[in-house]
Amino acid sequence: MVKIGIVGGTGYTGVELLRILASHGQADVRAITSRGEAGTRVIDMFPSLRGHYSSMSDKLEFTAPDATDLTACDIVFFATPHGVAMAQARGLVDAGVKIIDLAADFRIRDVATFEKWYKIPHTCPDLLAESVYGLPEFHRDEIRGARIVGNPGCYPTSMQLGFMPLIEAGIVDTGHLIADCKSGASGAGRKAEVGLLLAEASDSFRAYNVGGHRHHPETVQELAARSKTPVSLVFTPHLLPMIRGIHSTLYARLTRTDVDLQSLFEKRYAGEPFVDVMPAGSAPDTRSVRASNMARIAVHRPGNADMVTVLVVEDNLVKGAAGQAVQNMNLMFGLPETTGLTAAPVVP
Amino acid sequence: MVKIGIVGGTGYTGVELLRILASHGQADVRAITSRGEAGTRVIDMFPSLRGHYSSMSDKLEFTAPDATDLTACDIVFFATPHGVAMAQARGLVDAGVKIIDLAADFRIRDVATFEKWYKIPHTCPDLLAESVYGLPEFHRDEIRGARIVGNPGCYPTSMQLGFMPLIEAGIVDTGHLIADCKSGASGAGRKAEVGLLLAEASDSFRAYNVGGHRHHPETVQELAARSKTPVSLVFTPHLLPMIRGIHSTLYARLTRTDVDLQSLFEKRYAGEPFVDVMPAGSAPDTRSVRASNMARIAVHRPGNADMVTVLVVEDNLVKGAAGQAVQNMNLMFGLPETTGLTAAPVVP
Amino acid sequence: MVKIGIVGGTGYTGVELLRILASHGQADVRAITSRGEAGTRVIDMFPSLRGHYSSMSDKLEFTAPDATDLTACDIVFFATPHGVAMAQARGLVDAGVKIIDLAADFRIRDVATFEKWYKIPHTCPDLLAESVYGLPEFHRDEIRGARIVGNPGCYPTSMQLGFMPLIEAGIVDTGHLIADCKSGASGAGRKAEVGLLLAEASDSFRAYNVGGHRHHPETVQELAARSKTPVSLVFTPHLLPMIRGIHSTLYARLTRTDVDLQSLFEKRYAGEPFVDVMPAGSAPDTRSVRASNMARIAVHRPGNADMVTVLVVEDNLVKGAAGQAVQNMNLMFGLPETTGLTAAPVVP
Amino acid sequence: MVKIGIVGGTGYTGVELLRILASHGQADVRAITSRGEAGTRVIDMFPSLRGHYSSMSDKLEFTAPDATDLTACDIVFFATPHGVAMAQARGLVDAGVKIIDLAADFRIRDVATFEKWYKIPHTCPDLLAESVYGLPEFHRDEIRGARIVGNPGCYPTSMQLGFMPLIEAGIVDTGHLIADCKSGASGAGRKAEVGLLLAEASDSFRAYNVGGHRHHPETVQELAARSKTPVSLVFTPHLLPMIRGIHSTLYARLTRTDVDLQSLFEKRYAGEPFVDVMPAGSAPDTRSVRASNMARIAVHRPGNADMVTVLVVEDNLVKGAAGQAVQNMNLMFGLPETTGLTAAPVVP
Repeated sequence: MVKIGIVGGTGYTGVELLRILASHGQADVRAITSRGEAGTRVIDMFPSLRGHYSSMSDKLEFTAPDATDLTACDIVFFATPHGVAMAQARGLVDAGVKIIDLAADFRIRDVATFEKWYKIPHTCPDLLAESVYGLPEFHRDEIRGARIVGNPGCYPTSMQLGFMPLIEAGIVDTGHLIADCKSGASGAGRKAEVGLLLAEASDSFRAYNVGGHRHHPETVQELAARSKTPVSLVFTPHLLPMIRGIHSTLYARLTRTDVDLQSLFEKRYAGEPFVDVMPAGSAPDTRSVRASNMARIAVHRPGNADMVTVLVVEDNLVKGAAGQAVQNMNLMFGLPETTGLTAAPVVP
Repeated sequence: MVKIGIVGGTGYTGVELLRILASHGQADVRAITSRGEAGTRVIDMFPSLRGHYSSMSDKLEFTAPDATDLTACDIVFFATPHGVAMAQARGLVDAGVKIIDLAADFRIRDVATFEKWYKIPHTCPDLLAESVYGLPEFHRDEIRGARIVGNPGCYPTSMQLGFMPLIEAGIVDTGHLIADCKSGASGAGRKAEVGLLLAEASDSFRAYNVGGHRHHPETVQELAARSKTPVSLVFTPHLLPMIRGIHSTLYARLTRTDVDLQSLFEKRYAGEPFVDVMPAGSAPDTRSVRASNMARIAVHRPGNADMVTVLVVEDNLVKGAAGQAVQNMNLMFGLPETTGLTAAPVVP
Repeated sequence: MVKIGIVGGTGYTGVELLRILASHGQADVRAITSRGEAGTRVIDMFPSLRGHYSSMSDKLEFTAPDATDLTACDIVFFATPHGVAMAQARGLVDAGVKIIDLAADFRIRDVATFEKWYKIPHTCPDLLAESVYGLPEFHRDEIRGARIVGNPGCYPTSMQLGFMPLIEAGIVDTGHLIADCKSGASGAGRKAEVGLLLAEASDSFRAYNVGGHRHHPETVQELAARSKTPVSLVFTPHLLPMIRGIHSTLYARLTRTDVDLQSLFEKRYAGEPFVDVMPAGSAPDTRSVRASNMARIAVHRPGNADMVTVLVVEDNLVKGAAGQAVQNMNLMFGLPETTGLTAAPVVP
Repeated sequence: MVKIGIVGGTGYTGVELLRILASHGQADVRAITSRGEAGTRVIDMFPSLRGHYSSMSDKLEFTAPDATDLTACDIVFFATPHGVAMAQARGLVDAGVKIIDLAADFRIRDVATFEKWYKIPHTCPDLLAESVYGLPEFHRDEIRGARIVGNPGCYPTSMQLGFMPLIEAGIVDTGHLIADCKSGASGAGRKAEVGLLLAEASDSFRAYNVGGHRHHPETVQELAARSKTPVSLVFTPHLLPMIRGIHSTLYARLTRTDVDLQSLFEKRYAGEPFVDVMPAGSAPDTRSVRASNMARIAVHRPGNADMVTVLVVEDNLVKGAAGQAVQNMNLMFGLPETTGLTAAPVVP
């Protein structure tokens, strides 16, 4: 059993971790912290979890961060706002505790870029330097040996899975990539904002952060690392009137049109347990991955012209957050990579 | 491993069975029939299931009912319209195959009542007589020994769970029970009807079948069987603009007001793995049981007057259909009752 | 042209007033106040209103309450939290300005009852005494002459329209009335609360305030005023996963079963411009009144037994709030009652 | 009063025409046909319209197409599948009746292109030649004098409004235009299809017709007509889990980066009553135009690089169909262009 701590467990990534870990089999959640909810039983905040964590008689409680010793854990997940993980990382790592940060503290290699987009100083650049970007499809071996994993953003996961085979193959104009991405409202987190009310956001659709989104530099960093040519990306996030799911529609201009794109993607992801290249001509719906760690991809060349369109769907809370974090944990502890992540998507 | 056949696997109860059985561990789905989709691979109709049933290389196909020999199965689920199960029951039972019918063929004890509401003759009254009504909380022992189980309707499950403790205790006016029930649209099945289109049914709400619904006689039959006084029920079903979930708001006039209702319910369902009596004052949301076999119940006495209000939530496709069917199968085959049914609800 | 002031224009009733008044023809909105948004142009907060109020070059701005002289208005609408209207009523009335309060300050005749439910003292009981409850179908003549109108709550409007014909006719047990009511999320107002987020409230359904809701005393007051027997009501509000619309399902036990209920309702509401008694056997959907001031009612006697079920639908923001307020304004200023309220509901 | 006939009035564009015309003031709907619903009163099919068309005592009935003489009408709207309007156009035009076809019969100038995409022969190429493409912002004068108007498709309206200023100015690479478009489910029409059920399409999102959509040739035709360089377009339609609204996110590579895009759009649409160029930096939501004929546009240059992103929202049933048809009718009959189209959008 892996002894687990969760810092900041009241948001959507926190409760999703709890949901997944409840059926994991090798997970022993020892502590879960929350500044605002210290003393509240987890099941009173999330009645959906009543009856789970029963070895503790349903008594798992949120505890105050300052009053919680996490050094007895094997691993700590940070399901917190940006900046929290880096403040605690040194102490935990020194105590031999591994870390997976679901926020951005360990995603961006360049400190200046991090500080520009996140408006806070980075307080442990040395740990940042050793940390690993937690996208298993591209960093699996490094993750296995990592002490600190920066879990990728939800949008970046989908964009990288979709663009990378094209970039690795060197067959697209990387200077004019376009990612038109749509996310369910849970991606904005469990925070009270008027714009996210059901009465505001349902039966409506809009773009946001058209001029710049924090997931942009992270995505460009990773794409550029595997590209022989400079990467420039137009990324437009949109808010979907639904709960879970990201659909990224990716566009690139082909510099070579003699490559079998379907075959390229199938080969790249052969054997990947959580990337499903759909049959040619498909258009996966976000529904088909709901509550699951699977990403599904379809690749198209409309009109057989020199443009490629890639469709990627994932559950933003699973493959885009908590599920990928558990996948990383499995790798870090030598467990089968799919442990706890094999339940079929919820349809309808 | 239990060898399983599914007749009529293209509807929502069919695909929900497949979803649950995919993670069951003791289930070996040998055959799935569909008149309209014979020859189609299951994963091509339901891409959410890609990667599951992998022992069969994703090759599980719908087969024509007439061309499918189900006698090698240990059990056959009928996820079909009413009338199908009774037509095949004799042959299967004689071959030693157990049956769980998710339609109404084996729910109503009185043949005349069945025929009045379902407008078809009952073709095997002898098998009906031996069949068991599959609500484990009230028929567990009979289910264990049954060859044929009539799986309860979705609404009736919620109404019985909520009313029964009051009726068994003999403390309500059973002549004027009221059930105001609301169901997500998946309850209407996976069939093309204009009234169930997203553009029609979303952002709207309405009652239907106010004058009479087929789940009425089934519910009254079971309530009356445990009541010392005649049962009369007003049952108003409504269509919710959402996918899964039933919320039944039940009303009854108390004939005794000196009974601790909270305690009554807690005692009645103590030890039940899939009935969760919520703390006093609760109002469970359907979300809290989504994609799970759990039912949650809260009991209220507004203003401490002589009326009791019971709130019951369930997932209509799980505890209201496929999950309860698997629960029944577990009982019939001596498996732990919760096998395959322990995943936490999907929140958010 | 009626010169209009709106106090508290940033909530849903405020913007709905603006929407309706934009097409009213006799409405001149002179001032709209907001403590938090003073200085913001209305169209910047509500881009849907761009191009309307064009006589003011789209320049209508929210102004600070303290800095706004409303005495030049003919009428002021209070689309504010409870307590605001009563604080300003004396000054306005003395200046000859009429008032319609969309909150509860002038709904409840009994000061003690008001103070018990709303937890604030009532500061102008004399004005309360002269104020009129603004449900035109039952107080039309008094509204015409009123200086102050307490605009009814959304739920109470629907409950009264549905129960009143039965109560006036004296044919139901008024001691055990049941109102199972469901409202879209806009009924909770435009305020940031986690429970009302799309990611929380959509694809889910729950009851709330089962033990007591502020709309209860108001409803009982009005029903009792026309009943020869004492009124007791069980009222269960529920939150629908949608934006607009209330569906009230009302139940009562008939003390006489020889009355033609359909005819009773049709006669009671003959000539009413905004109450539509549907044909026998109907089940109106909330959709059929969306964005309109119409309420639709259907009356049923399930199984011809001694229970009556009444279905009432309304748009909570229109007939349940802003539309009814404009209907009242029309009456108070001698305009045709339907002015500005004749647009057809938005379907689909 | 304009005497109006509607052919095929049971779909969403039909009922939307009825909704808009109910408040038009100059519209006299004389006949509405439906093959399947002949004899049904309009208000029985669409209860939302009860009380409207009252000059006819709510008696407007669907009539059989063959039994309906439309030659006494001033104008006939075809809210039918493709192919119906062209079959009746000759007879009506010869009788002096004007025609607006909301399907595709008179949208595509090139008969071969029409026949390739719509799989039916065009039966009146001579009338096609004289017909006018009904996008007032680009064909206003021709519409005024037209006998036959081909009302634009919903997607094409949004794509043209967004791309055209860039193309007219000659500042984009027209060979690699990208339109990532999202539509509410009402765009698929009021037809029973499993994929459009609430239980299928809600809480989900997907692309469709990625390989080719019928609105592609129409859009390219119109864009090319005003472009000095050849037009090639990648158009990806997606299905939104909501009822009304199209959001088109348009991308193009700038060939000149010294043009003030905001100013370009504002000047192009100055004075247009139904095109609203939003302030710089905006991201309009579809909500802001719901149930209205307005389109709103925002133009962005992310990162000040050489790509332009244009956001366009419209209500697919209004500016994308019935509203634009009424706008065209107003032009054809010399009425003020905004007649019947001035109601504010429905928010929330």
